[in-house]
Amino acid sequence: MFYLDERIESTCFVLGDWPLSRVLLKNDQSYPWFLLVPRINDVQEIYQLDKAAQSLLMEEINQLSLLVKQHYQPDKLNVAALGNVVAQLHVHIVARSTQDGLWPQGIWQGAQNSIPYEECRLNSILPGLRTMIAQVFMNKV
Amino acid sequence: MFYLDERIESTCFVLGDWPLSRVLLKNDQSYPWFLLVPRINDVQEIYQLDKAAQSLLMEEINQLSLLVKQHYQPDKLNVAALGNVVAQLHVHIVARSTQDGLWPQGIWQGAQNSIPYEECRLNSILPGLRTMIAQVFMNKV
Repeated sequence: MFYLDERIESTCFVLGDWPLSRVLLKNDQSYPWFLLVPRINDVQEIYQLDKAAQSLLMEEINQLSLLVKQHYQPDKLNVAALGNVVAQLHVHIVARSTQDGLWPQGIWQGAQNSIPYEECRLNSILPGLRTMIAQVFMNKV
Repeated sequence: MFYLDERIESTCFVLGDWPLSRVLLKNDQSYPWFLLVPRINDVQEIYQLDKAAQSLLMEEINQLSLLVKQHYQPDKLNVAALGNVVAQLHVHIVARSTQDGLWPQGIWQGAQNSIPYEECRLNSILPGLRTMIAQVFMNKV
């Protein structure tokens, strides 16, 4: 059974499952901040994935990037597999604005200061995001 | 002709060219810090690469990660395409140690404080790194 690290689970909302990865939204209203977590246990690094899984991961990075770009019109995307705190392989895809609080720095040093979404805001955005995530691979795999 | 951003060029050493990307070593002895820069002009985001280039990029991330892992035995790799300062698409692959100065934070907020390699150290490491980089795709593509 796939195990999602509890620090990811407790700070994110699940948006859906793609062919390889669970797609999540980080509970931080400061940034449109998404995560891809390959549903394979005991993997910390991209090079530990086999060739087929690496291809899927790249396609999922591509698809999630396009979705974030179309939906949020960011000035820049930040795509990163770091894992210094939570080792389970996860790829951040974050919409950055030149007006956001930490620009042009990375956002990870500020992670402990995340600002959770308010419930009414979540109720308004989660259904739409889940529908968008569900549609991406519907006709592709 | 391929154009490498001058801020990358002036802070890195070229190690070689792989099928898609120029491979570079960042001039910062604090971390074994490598860059992949796809040799395609006017690309800022991974999603702007076509499918074939995305596949090559993933394979080059995989190969450079394996090389860095074998050579430096890091506790963790950090793989990231950020581009908030230099927009030209480039992927960082950094060997992190739990003993390094910024662990477990990202290293990018400290980039302005980089410590250049001394010349004798460079003369000792660059030839070996260039040979390793040259050998990776020799029999593969």
